[in-house]
Amino acid sequence: MNRKMVFKTVGTMLMAEAALLLLPTAVALIYREKCALYLALAAVVALVGGGALNRFCKPDSDLIYAREGFVTVALTWLAWSAVGALPFFLAREIPSYVDAFFETVSGFTTTGASILTNVEAMSQGLLFWRSFTHWVGGMGILVFVMALVPGSNDRSMHILRAEMPGPVVGKLLPRARDTASILYKIYVGMTLVEIILLLVGGMPLFESVVHAFGTAGTGGFGVKADSIAGYSPYLQWVITVFMFLFGVNFNLYYLLLARRFKAAAQSSEFWYYLGIVLVSVALIAANILPLCKTFEEAVRLSAFQVSSIMTTTGYATTDFNLWPEFSKGILLLLMMIGACAGSTGGGLKVSRAVMLVKTVGREIRHLLHPRSVNAVKFEGKTVDKATLKGVSSYFAIYMVCTVAVYMLLTLDGFDLETNLSATFACFNNIGPGLAAVGPTANYFAYNPLSKIVLSLAMLLGRLEIFPLLLTLSPSTWMKR
Amino acid sequence: MNRKMVFKTVGTMLMAEAALLLLPTAVALIYREKCALYLALAAVVALVGGGALNRFCKPDSDLIYAREGFVTVALTWLAWSAVGALPFFLAREIPSYVDAFFETVSGFTTTGASILTNVEAMSQGLLFWRSFTHWVGGMGILVFVMALVPGSNDRSMHILRAEMPGPVVGKLLPRARDTASILYKIYVGMTLVEIILLLVGGMPLFESVVHAFGTAGTGGFGVKADSIAGYSPYLQWVITVFMFLFGVNFNLYYLLLARRFKAAAQSSEFWYYLGIVLVSVALIAANILPLCKTFEEAVRLSAFQVSSIMTTTGYATTDFNLWPEFSKGILLLLMMIGACAGSTGGGLKVSRAVMLVKTVGREIRHLLHPRSVNAVKFEGKTVDKATLKGVSSYFAIYMVCTVAVYMLLTLDGFDLETNLSATFACFNNIGPGLAAVGPTANYFAYNPLSKIVLSLAMLLGRLEIFPLLLTLSPSTWMKR
Repeated sequence: MNRKMVFKTVGTMLMAEAALLLLPTAVALIYREKCALYLALAAVVALVGGGALNRFCKPDSDLIYAREGFVTVALTWLAWSAVGALPFFLAREIPSYVDAFFETVSGFTTTGASILTNVEAMSQGLLFWRSFTHWVGGMGILVFVMALVPGSNDRSMHILRAEMPGPVVGKLLPRARDTASILYKIYVGMTLVEIILLLVGGMPLFESVVHAFGTAGTGGFGVKADSIAGYSPYLQWVITVFMFLFGVNFNLYYLLLARRFKAAAQSSEFWYYLGIVLVSVALIAANILPLCKTFEEAVRLSAFQVSSIMTTTGYATTDFNLWPEFSKGILLLLMMIGACAGSTGGGLKVSRAVMLVKTVGREIRHLLHPRSVNAVKFEGKTVDKATLKGVSSYFAIYMVCTVAVYMLLTLDGFDLETNLSATFACFNNIGPGLAAVGPTANYFAYNPLSKIVLSLAMLLGRLEIFPLLLTLSPSTWMKR
Repeated sequence: MNRKMVFKTVGTMLMAEAALLLLPTAVALIYREKCALYLALAAVVALVGGGALNRFCKPDSDLIYAREGFVTVALTWLAWSAVGALPFFLAREIPSYVDAFFETVSGFTTTGASILTNVEAMSQGLLFWRSFTHWVGGMGILVFVMALVPGSNDRSMHILRAEMPGPVVGKLLPRARDTASILYKIYVGMTLVEIILLLVGGMPLFESVVHAFGTAGTGGFGVKADSIAGYSPYLQWVITVFMFLFGVNFNLYYLLLARRFKAAAQSSEFWYYLGIVLVSVALIAANILPLCKTFEEAVRLSAFQVSSIMTTTGYATTDFNLWPEFSKGILLLLMMIGACAGSTGGGLKVSRAVMLVKTVGREIRHLLHPRSVNAVKFEGKTVDKATLKGVSSYFAIYMVCTVAVYMLLTLDGFDLETNLSATFACFNNIGPGLAAVGPTANYFAYNPLSKIVLSLAMLLGRLEIFPLLLTLSPSTWMKR
């Protein structure tokens, strides 16, 4: 492996993080907060550390293959989280470094799981940084840098592939940088529209920005102890719609921008996604109707929670832990499915789930009619065997990882519902789980080992397992 | 499909059930119990119904293909359960027919899940019938008839395949009937040895027979409210060892009988099974040591519960619902894995679980070293792709069914832990779950719809999904 090139790239990425840290530093200065100092200090650490790596690693060649791409992505995410946790820790607003690391990983991976027991006591500068990590992590931190920094080359497609979620990354434009750039333009545009709509509804500027970051990244960090529950129905609906929109495959928006409406309408993943959301909203609304004052309230609560869970955002407007088991069951199922491939959402992805169910259907049809030929079709095309096999084995690996994380959590003494939903909520980058990690509670009470396990689970989930697995494998680092 | 041949065979099988019902009738007569009348009445129903089917269905040919085999097996199991439930219902010892049906399905499928709130108040005749269903269902009810009734022909192999659990049924001998017969000889022999060892330990004859039936079928029905907890350590150890032994692939015993020791020693499924059991026993014993008085007690409790859950028997000597979460997590994992293929135990089967994990390992190795060739080996041979694909898609279908059963249960208002463990415990034919369906509780409180869903789940699990699915598919019954 071209180790030096990997470390050199990680160095460059750390320097980019230093630049990003200046934004929350500015916010902290505006609010005249002490944390500005610690944010600036973290920026210096990132700059010096990244600069040193970048300077002293002199690769013999700048070739990057898939393997280097995966490892670079995994190491960058780890390094960004390690440095990004510093301001919280140095400012003593999160006294334990493991907790600060958990919170930062949760931010970058857009999980939104929190260990903060009193979010409203945090300084504005750190709250801004916390939500900004969602926004940067949502589309992918390397993609972000790639979109900004000139000089990225075609080989960067390996990095784009390793970081973008979903089974297939469409190469929208021939050059990786152009793809990254068009995706970020859409992303910035949609975020701005949401901020404006929230401002129109009377939400203060700081909160509008923070919530737009949380929605865009499908993260879920907010500034209120009761998440979104305290805002007006209009604001809740705006966030509901935008959570849904950020769960859509961004290729679709590109097709719409390029006026290729016919191609956009043929995206079956979108229709499945819309269908699952609508059916879930209807079922849950009917189920919780007796608990609500009005029909509108039932639909609003249902739509908000469904969008939030399915896109793995994790905002809440009610304690769904108190809902009937049937509604909780649907939410648990939506947690597993997740949003569309190529969106900022996590989970297994709608396209994988659909292909999995179609494979099952094909197996059953094959059994009923052994002589028939049954091909699995998706997006109007026959899915080739390699992709189907990839989906099946991804599912198997996904289940094995889920079991492993769950077993490590059982060492911590919480009950089954807490541990199981914590596993799902972190591994699928959702945020809140059920019971002791439900929407009104948080992850503070877990011990440090569990927090590290859950941090790794969030990274595994966000990077879709392989990059981290590859980085942790000794054979990756051995010389041939 | 050759419908008439299917119904004719189901008729024959019902007549065989009539003959079987005479045994508990005799037991009831010995104890001078009124239920003898109802057992005899059920025998008459089975004889008349089966006789009519057998008489009036005149197939044009006696050809049986895989499809007919699957449907015959599924319908026979449904018919046997429907008739087998009659004595409980007619004798008013189980006042609701749905409950009686649940109990009988649980018996034949060797699940051992019960709706009885006071098992010690039941008559001896019905307790005997209840446990006898385990013993007959364990090895397969059609296999049982096949072993006894002459005139079964080679085509019956399709039935043997459909009924025997596990991914591959070894054809031990060229003729299906000989295979069925040798398997039953081993089964009877081992059951007798267990009865004798239990008698030696001072257990009364009736209880020895009932518990041997429950162990042999890996069922779990007993006669005491506290299951096996009240018996001496010696008796608990005997049952522990026999639960383990009945979870072994019966082909292995055949090889031992045939003195093919080398071939027997090469059964890697057995070594994996033994390894998983030993590791689980050690981990749980260490975990529960602080709760126990002596080291022997910790090992005994751990070994009993591990054997019971892994072989899906479901006997208990302690309320493992009160164990630490880590131990409960291991038990939940063992519930999924289940016993060896070709044993009387349920679950996913050790061989499938091992192949699944090996497939995952191969995928990861392939990712790490894209140019290497990685074949999955099992039992010393390279596993062909069709088998691996079958294992993967079985796992996917298994997960889809688990989700479907779980979602239907959530309509009933129990908590997540109860519903989830009830789904696992019934679908994998284990019996007791956790929380409200834990080892000291039962399934009585579920509503009739949930009980029917769980009954179907038990049948799905026991027959490994396909036969029931095929029978419930409309296209199976349509004329071409």
